[in-house]
Amino acid sequence: MTYCVAMRLAEGLVFMSDTRTNAGFDQISTFKKMHQFNQPNERALTLLSAGNLATSQSIMSLLQKRIGTNLQNVFSTTSMYETAELVGRTMREVIQRDACGGPRMVDFSCSLVLGGQILGEPPRLFMIYSEGNFIESTRETPYFQIGESKYGKPILDRVMSYETPLDRAFQCALISFDSTMKSNLSVGMPLDVSLYRQNELVPCYAGRIDEHNEYFQNLRTAWHSGLQNLITDLVPPFLNAPQPVAAQTTTVTRG
Amino acid sequence: MTYCVAMRLAEGLVFMSDTRTNAGFDQISTFKKMHQFNQPNERALTLLSAGNLATSQSIMSLLQKRIGTNLQNVFSTTSMYETAELVGRTMREVIQRDACGGPRMVDFSCSLVLGGQILGEPPRLFMIYSEGNFIESTRETPYFQIGESKYGKPILDRVMSYETPLDRAFQCALISFDSTMKSNLSVGMPLDVSLYRQNELVPCYAGRIDEHNEYFQNLRTAWHSGLQNLITDLVPPFLNAPQPVAAQTTTVTRG
Repeated sequence: MTYCVAMRLAEGLVFMSDTRTNAGFDQISTFKKMHQFNQPNERALTLLSAGNLATSQSIMSLLQKRIGTNLQNVFSTTSMYETAELVGRTMREVIQRDACGGPRMVDFSCSLVLGGQILGEPPRLFMIYSEGNFIESTRETPYFQIGESKYGKPILDRVMSYETPLDRAFQCALISFDSTMKSNLSVGMPLDVSLYRQNELVPCYAGRIDEHNEYFQNLRTAWHSGLQNLITDLVPPFLNAPQPVAAQTTTVTRG
Repeated sequence: MTYCVAMRLAEGLVFMSDTRTNAGFDQISTFKKMHQFNQPNERALTLLSAGNLATSQSIMSLLQKRIGTNLQNVFSTTSMYETAELVGRTMREVIQRDACGGPRMVDFSCSLVLGGQILGEPPRLFMIYSEGNFIESTRETPYFQIGESKYGKPILDRVMSYETPLDRAFQCALISFDSTMKSNLSVGMPLDVSLYRQNELVPCYAGRIDEHNEYFQNLRTAWHSGLQNLITDLVPPFLNAPQPVAAQTTTVTRG
């Protein structure tokens, strides 16, 4: 499994991905799911991938191989929209190639998040579906998740908005990963992180966070005990007063 | 969709279910998913259902119809284990009947949670799968969820244990439903709730919680602002120091 989050905020872009892949419980590996294509002072592109690893690796290989050729490529596009079209087309190409053996029980699909900035445009963020079509983030919906998204979604929805500062969004993404990793063993450390401030075109933070990262360790502990204290401080429901319990009969109670 | 939670704790049992069913976005209805079979001073059984509504309604109808007959029924079983076997067998009977039209694209499956107490036994809690087989809760795993379980699972895992008092467990279940209803529109109010203290055989609380319930309204507000304050109080990551960013080159960065 995989979990990736990307945010397009007023201050810039946040990307985070786990690194665990599995094909069964006894085939666990570590693979990078964050891929970057950078041209200094020109463009900074990040791709996050979830789904079939053969498909996503092939897409990255083809995108890389075509750089510098006459074919349209990730360094020749003139906008993020055009780049999303290119990536979507490459996705269709790979899936059509691999699925040509006929209908099988194999799911070749994958989903990608493409974000970044090309000089002359603001930063933009796209989610690209297996079909190669895509949607763009908006001020109202400033983030995309791919992979195992449900466990870590409530906290994002509660505390994150387009105006959230970059450091707080980074923190919020870490908490979202913490919740996901607690509930799904197939999402695992280390985490890859990249943060870009608007118009800087180089990351203001880029790194890999592992189990020994002190900040993340402290954050997880503080969040866990903070939640427990929060529950303790809330007023519990009062159960001891006589409650309007329906008379108990031998007949079956059904709604 | 559906979301149901049941807990078997040191103090007793907690059951909570939403009431929304949908067959497409424009076919939304309210159905009770909590079903009770009570014999005063004898037994108190609660069933929660998720999945195919036709299947779960038929199971409840057959369980009800057979009460008082010579057939084994929910009032003639002598243990919760035997009751779980009976319910599982009834589930298989319904699914086999409805699926006999041959392989179709219809999913007839449903899942049930059965909990309660029969005089002479402690309270027990079972999760019954579509196949009619079942598992029982333990001290280490004191709760079961069915339906849309992921959004509301992290908070249960963090703050609930077998020793949690009944009122706190009720509160925790309400927060779990709040998170789920924020993220999935097809899980909806009102909520049905039943709480049983060990050996009492009648609920110490039973009721329906709707949008106007003052306690739940206050809890949702306090939880939401508490989470936001908790995030604000945590130390954000420090982004302004020089970070060990890999040298940016025109070549592609791949792991």
